Amino acid sequence: MISRFVLLCLLFSVVSVPSLAEDGYDLWLRYPVADAAGYPSLGSGARALVAGNNSPTLNAAGTELQRGLTGLTGQQVPFAVDVTHAGDVVFGTPQSFPLIGRLQLGLSAAGDEGYVIRSRVVSGKPVTVIAANSDVGVLYGVFHFLRIVQTHGSLDALDIVSRPRTKIRVLDHWDNLDRHVERGYAGQSLWDWHKLPGYVDPRYTDYARASASVGINGAVLTNVNANATSLTAPYLEKAAALANVFRPYGIRVYLTARFSAPIELGGLKTADPLDPEVRAWWKQKIDEIYTVIPDFGGFLVKANSEGQPGPQQYQRTHADGANMLAEALSPHHGIVMWRAFVYSNETPTDRATQAYDEFKPLDGKFAANVLVQVKNGPIDFQPREPFHPLFGAMPKTPLMMEFQITKEYLGFATHLVYLGPLFEEALAADTRVKGRGATVAKVIDGELERHELTGMAGVANIGSDRNWSGSQFDQANWYAFGRFAWDPEIKARAVAEEWARMTFSNDGRFVTPVVDMMMGSREAAVDYMTPLGLAHLMGTGHHYGPAPWVSDLGRADWNPTYYHRADKNGIGFERGPAGSNAVAQYSKDVASVFADRAKTPEQFLLWFHHVPWDYKTSSGRILWDELVVRYSRGVDEVEHMREAWSGMREYVDRERFTQVSEYLAVQKQEAQWWRDACIAYFQNISGRALPAGYAPPAHPLEYYQSLKFPYAPGGSK
Amino acid sequence: MISRFVLLCLLFSVVSVPSLAEDGYDLWLRYPVADAAGYPSLGSGARALVAGNNSPTLNAAGTELQRGLTGLTGQQVPFAVDVTHAGDVVFGTPQSFPLIGRLQLGLSAAGDEGYVIRSRVVSGKPVTVIAANSDVGVLYGVFHFLRIVQTHGSLDALDIVSRPRTKIRVLDHWDNLDRHVERGYAGQSLWDWHKLPGYVDPRYTDYARASASVGINGAVLTNVNANATSLTAPYLEKAAALANVFRPYGIRVYLTARFSAPIELGGLKTADPLDPEVRAWWKQKIDEIYTVIPDFGGFLVKANSEGQPGPQQYQRTHADGANMLAEALSPHHGIVMWRAFVYSNETPTDRATQAYDEFKPLDGKFAANVLVQVKNGPIDFQPREPFHPLFGAMPKTPLMMEFQITKEYLGFATHLVYLGPLFEEALAADTRVKGRGATVAKVIDGELERHELTGMAGVANIGSDRNWSGSQFDQANWYAFGRFAWDPEIKARAVAEEWARMTFSNDGRFVTPVVDMMMGSREAAVDYMTPLGLAHLMGTGHHYGPAPWVSDLGRADWNPTYYHRADKNGIGFERGPAGSNAVAQYSKDVASVFADRAKTPEQFLLWFHHVPWDYKTSSGRILWDELVVRYSRGVDEVEHMREAWSGMREYVDRERFTQVSEYLAVQKQEAQWWRDACIAYFQNISGRALPAGYAPPAHPLEYYQSLKFPYAPGGSK
Repeated sequence: MISRFVLLCLLFSVVSVPSLAEDGYDLWLRYPVADAAGYPSLGSGARALVAGNNSPTLNAAGTELQRGLTGLTGQQVPFAVDVTHAGDVVFGTPQSFPLIGRLQLGLSAAGDEGYVIRSRVVSGKPVTVIAANSDVGVLYGVFHFLRIVQTHGSLDALDIVSRPRTKIRVLDHWDNLDRHVERGYAGQSLWDWHKLPGYVDPRYTDYARASASVGINGAVLTNVNANATSLTAPYLEKAAALANVFRPYGIRVYLTARFSAPIELGGLKTADPLDPEVRAWWKQKIDEIYTVIPDFGGFLVKANSEGQPGPQQYQRTHADGANMLAEALSPHHGIVMWRAFVYSNETPTDRATQAYDEFKPLDGKFAANVLVQVKNGPIDFQPREPFHPLFGAMPKTPLMMEFQITKEYLGFATHLVYLGPLFEEALAADTRVKGRGATVAKVIDGELERHELTGMAGVANIGSDRNWSGSQFDQANWYAFGRFAWDPEIKARAVAEEWARMTFSNDGRFVTPVVDMMMGSREAAVDYMTPLGLAHLMGTGHHYGPAPWVSDLGRADWNPTYYHRADKNGIGFERGPAGSNAVAQYSKDVASVFADRAKTPEQFLLWFHHVPWDYKTSSGRILWDELVVRYSRGVDEVEHMREAWSGMREYVDRERFTQVSEYLAVQKQEAQWWRDACIAYFQNISGRALPAGYAPPAHPLEYYQSLKFPYAPGGSK
Repeated sequence: MISRFVLLCLLFSVVSVPSLAEDGYDLWLRYPVADAAGYPSLGSGARALVAGNNSPTLNAAGTELQRGLTGLTGQQVPFAVDVTHAGDVVFGTPQSFPLIGRLQLGLSAAGDEGYVIRSRVVSGKPVTVIAANSDVGVLYGVFHFLRIVQTHGSLDALDIVSRPRTKIRVLDHWDNLDRHVERGYAGQSLWDWHKLPGYVDPRYTDYARASASVGINGAVLTNVNANATSLTAPYLEKAAALANVFRPYGIRVYLTARFSAPIELGGLKTADPLDPEVRAWWKQKIDEIYTVIPDFGGFLVKANSEGQPGPQQYQRTHADGANMLAEALSPHHGIVMWRAFVYSNETPTDRATQAYDEFKPLDGKFAANVLVQVKNGPIDFQPREPFHPLFGAMPKTPLMMEFQITKEYLGFATHLVYLGPLFEEALAADTRVKGRGATVAKVIDGELERHELTGMAGVANIGSDRNWSGSQFDQANWYAFGRFAWDPEIKARAVAEEWARMTFSNDGRFVTPVVDMMMGSREAAVDYMTPLGLAHLMGTGHHYGPAPWVSDLGRADWNPTYYHRADKNGIGFERGPAGSNAVAQYSKDVASVFADRAKTPEQFLLWFHHVPWDYKTSSGRILWDELVVRYSRGVDEVEHMREAWSGMREYVDRERFTQVSEYLAVQKQEAQWWRDACIAYFQNISGRALPAGYAPPAHPLEYYQSLKFPYAPGGSK
């Protein structure tokens, strides 16, 4: 019978008493109970949370502190009005709690939104003080304090001052009113418009907690491809219900303004921004918005781009359009974020040059409460692009960075691609407009030209999926965006480590390999999709998978062949003086590098130059061979990621471990598909043999060309 | 300082150590730890789970037993190979466990899918035995046993035999390949087609557990408005991945067959069901399906209805179409479910008569593995309809019931409407085709005409929402569907009570008022939407809210005015001999009742008759007054539901309590809207004053007519 018993035990799954499911919902705000050894920094500290008067925001801060410390210690941490124990945590502003004012904390360094976290002795007890000049600063400080505890940092001799380096730190939700999310891979829109305002999902609060925890202070609720209906009274009531939830967390609500709304909603004959009736309509509409949402943030506008209406239809400029809205918003302290991502109806010689050509002449013409929002690169959120030439080129205009957090061009939800290195690379790029050190970071944080109004936008990767972002690791991109918006000079590796510790485990055997894997993941994706400066080889419309052969779309610059320009002689888009001369849009020092094929960093080689197949690269290999090597290296790197993750089983709960594992298997398969399809296609053009030791594609080119994905998610509809 | 301390305690939310969140995800399969007093039936019983050989299905059964009893008792319940304790639970089939065969359990009464649960003494110990002739029967028995425990039933002297009275118990998912769910109000489709088969969401397993727990044994994965792409090889691989998950739970996968697939996928010139090439194409396709999904269930087909292609395009009959597919499925033991919900391109004199007119002549012409699937009523899932005249009218053909679980016409997710009474009313309706007692239940369970192949389909209300069904109480409709499919003569109140106990609480102070509320909820919805036999007054397309005034749609029978036919003399659709004579489609005994205005049950009065406004109803009030009274009563009833629920706070976790409360507030508001809009409209026609004491509508009719809901969820697209 023993053998049957053993059999039985082996065959029946073992179920233990249910434990708290780990499905990713808690994001990095996990406060799992751990033994004392697990949180050495906490030790026997944190006896009580000592505060003064309350406010909705201070309540949010106190509640989070209590939730975090109670969760982490497994013991109810009480509130108190006086310090009575070593390890108490004192928090507040000089206004909310006179004790804070008396402690000489150097709060002037914290500014409006920043905070200090300092170790002090109060009533003879060593305590930690989290203080700020504003309630929301206290909230940010609380999240920082919790992060220290969550990541096993030391709580001794704390002496932290932090303030955000950009003012507007906003998530752009490309969410439609039917809950479809354009370029969304995480289910539907979080905003359940139909049930709002009657039903307010508690998830909205958790969204606000998570965003505030990394310093995000705004949410554009609606798609940049805008719908005027979002400005009607019923939808303003719905947006107001969200604003009410977000307000205690310091998050303002913004909407996208469809430029033709005066026609569609107001029944006017024109949307000309200089027309008095149009101006009156917008003024009235904006006044109406502020009666419903008193702290409304303002508008994000995509105009005269990809079919969206705009001022150019009336022979007016982007500045005319932006300033009209800005004037009406100004009395309410609202702002306009006007996108520089434009492409006109005519096919240009080089798509990469359009934004600069249209916006550079408008420098100095925008109202004081307008930000021009510029994508990190001149095309469209590719795995790698050089920095956008507008950065540094409009000194009189505050430029806002637009990153894409959702992975439209990066494999959707199933590919593990940590974007920290992309953010860091883009922000560290040196425009050299005022000598060395004029980095993009210093352009957008206002330091370079002393702008007060500054900002960073991230196209959100958040949806109704239980794990919020479509995958566990995509949460890191939401997290990293907030951290980079707060400090554009932060390091991607440090951010990854914070996130991995909070989200999964502090065990060094987990942290090191996983952070390594994250840090290498973006370069892997570049390699298996678009190595050496290639771009825009993705499938038509949905951007899923490889389609470098597509050449028959309605406009030349919609085609992958427009971008890679491969022919029997070579590959790449010549943007030097012999080509489109797009390099001339950069400062002289930068242009001289990019214009010269020999000086151009290899990662941008084919972005700036059409290069012969037998061009000798830095590896000593000819370009064709190097291309094959890079594609193959990308696939190998994903395999290494799979191997690394497979060793993490003991540090991660089963549900998240399995999901990541299955996604990595998909990524491996799709990386191989990318490599094989691209090599099959480019080989057909180059006519060259694969370098020795590199396997041919698994299928003939026709197979890859035959694949269709009519229901790939996230399309623009 | 005391007062400030009190203030602090009051102002800061109190957070306790995180407990298992109750958000509805667990459905009725909740196994919360309770003290011994909470589960008196369990007492010190259930020491060990005693089983024999294993199989995937027996593993699922054992795992569920262990999960349930371990959860409910808070103590790990082990597996064992021999009875050693009083209270052990023995489970299996005679094949898996010889002990079962020796116990003389009367298994012949359990049939293929049924089970027995009996108290026995084994090895001198009193034990419970769960036994069946098949593994899936054991699984069903396990869920029944757990239900007894969950609802605090007695485990003494158990003597249960249960077998399903229908063979095909299937959920119809109207899910598109882009995850849009037609008439879905619970988020997106559960099936993440894009990520399948690479990523298999663990949620699929929980779906299978829940469905199997109420005896559901099939899932039609795709929309009846079918897409041929679902029959292509990549999508068959995706469906196969789901089938692999469902198989241990006894759930077979079905697909919808687009009738024109031979043209769209096969490149043929025709889809004529008598064309040899077409027949060969389907045979090959079906053989292909079975290589990928060996236990594929078969097809559901909507043909020649609402624009779907079908055999009538080729001058063939529904039987020709169904039989062609049936012939190719037959060697694999697959079936065809052919829908009788048809309406042709020509506007009929009476939409209610079409299905009968088209299908009755085909009785006896369908192949043996074809079921004709008939909606419960002759129009389309209205809040109340008389039973469909096809029931009883096709004795040679097995008719399958089609209920709609999703609340397309019943207020979507936010209205609490328990459908048990609707199911019970429809199934208990007496067709009188063979004298009294020839109920619809006996038609569809095969008893009346001795059919072996029987079935019941429910249009699923399941989606990606965390609570699965869009609301907590809509889960009860999924649950009830399964219970009615298993036993078409079960009672709605008993089902509601089971569900409420398992889903929320066994406390009698909760159970009684909540079951009362559930039982009254459908009649409330009938009253505030379509009292006295009215139908189809909903908003165009989306069916959200009232629009009785709509009269300008492309076809007469799309308009609410077609259905209510209100004029200055009266209201209602005359279906007696003086009108469309639809009553003649019923058996003589039934027809004689419905044909006579005086004999027609008042709940169907305006369904069958055009009645003068001053007609004296059974209350003594004239029809107009009665209409106003009923509309008002519906609103009042919702207010009573709100009051009842507000008293349930202490029995329900905060998250679910709050969600239900907010939804009931929405329902109240919308019930009022329905009442006011309908009264405003009908008063405009009747020209009569409201009865004394009844408030006029809050707004003029034009206001209600002006409301637009372009983004109401669940549209057919």
